[in-house]
Amino acid sequence: MGVNALIKINFVVVGHLKEKYWNDAFSEYAKRISRFAELKVYEVAESSDAGSIELQKSKECAGILNKLTGFVILTDRTGDIIDDKQFADLISQLAVNGISEISYVIGGSHGVSESIKMRANKVVSFGKLTFPHRLMRIILAEQIYRALTIINGLPYHK
Amino acid sequence: MGVNALIKINFVVVGHLKEKYWNDAFSEYAKRISRFAELKVYEVAESSDAGSIELQKSKECAGILNKLTGFVILTDRTGDIIDDKQFADLISQLAVNGISEISYVIGGSHGVSESIKMRANKVVSFGKLTFPHRLMRIILAEQIYRALTIINGLPYHK
Repeated sequence: MGVNALIKINFVVVGHLKEKYWNDAFSEYAKRISRFAELKVYEVAESSDAGSIELQKSKECAGILNKLTGFVILTDRTGDIIDDKQFADLISQLAVNGISEISYVIGGSHGVSESIKMRANKVVSFGKLTFPHRLMRIILAEQIYRALTIINGLPYHK
Repeated sequence: MGVNALIKINFVVVGHLKEKYWNDAFSEYAKRISRFAELKVYEVAESSDAGSIELQKSKECAGILNKLTGFVILTDRTGDIIDDKQFADLISQLAVNGISEISYVIGGSHGVSESIKMRANKVVSFGKLTFPHRLMRIILAEQIYRALTIINGLPYHK
């Protein structure tokens, strides 16, 4: 089945992609995703290193909560480890059910607080490894592009 | 424990990093790894799209086999899904046992043949998702840098 052109995909993430190589890699996947979906990126301020980790996390998470709309998919190691097919199926099942907006969340350096896990409609894990959250943004964009090619029956552009 | 300065880490991979952003991201992690290890990258020719997938894979894998030295760690979805700690422990246990050379293998677009799985001393999985092999090179480099900071008790440089 094809996903209707109006599907909205939001990235709700922490901080900027400071390095040019992450920016360029993300832009490439964003460009590819935009063939199939309306992509928006919401960058929540990265909390300063002053104060406790819990305080930083809770500030960042308040910012994240504020940006969440539609069906919320949190990427977090505590979720179910999924494969490409399951990741793509999630998008197509939502489309079938008339849900046309998905917000994907990536926490900051210290992850997310319980408030985000509770708000999330689904928590998915990409494996047991820890990745830098900026690299995770690239990995997620690549998987979404891959999912959209699977759903639309198109070849994956290498 | 600290890893002795002479540890050799080889990447045995397929094809070039054509995109500048992958090259720059890899160079950054390679630079960081080189504080702790002697890093070498062996790029095996990517087999042309002519011929069957099995034929391509077997050509690429012959090239890979030819470059393997030391303890061979294959990254492949069929392996055990590991976490950061286990990934780092593997390196430090090898060092304790006097093994000072590790070859990490990433297959090409179609993965690797049984010959590589048989030759590998260990097969590790980073999750159930499929990643482009070029992105996988960045992910692996980041994890090795992370492992070396864990082993050496140093802070992870974001």
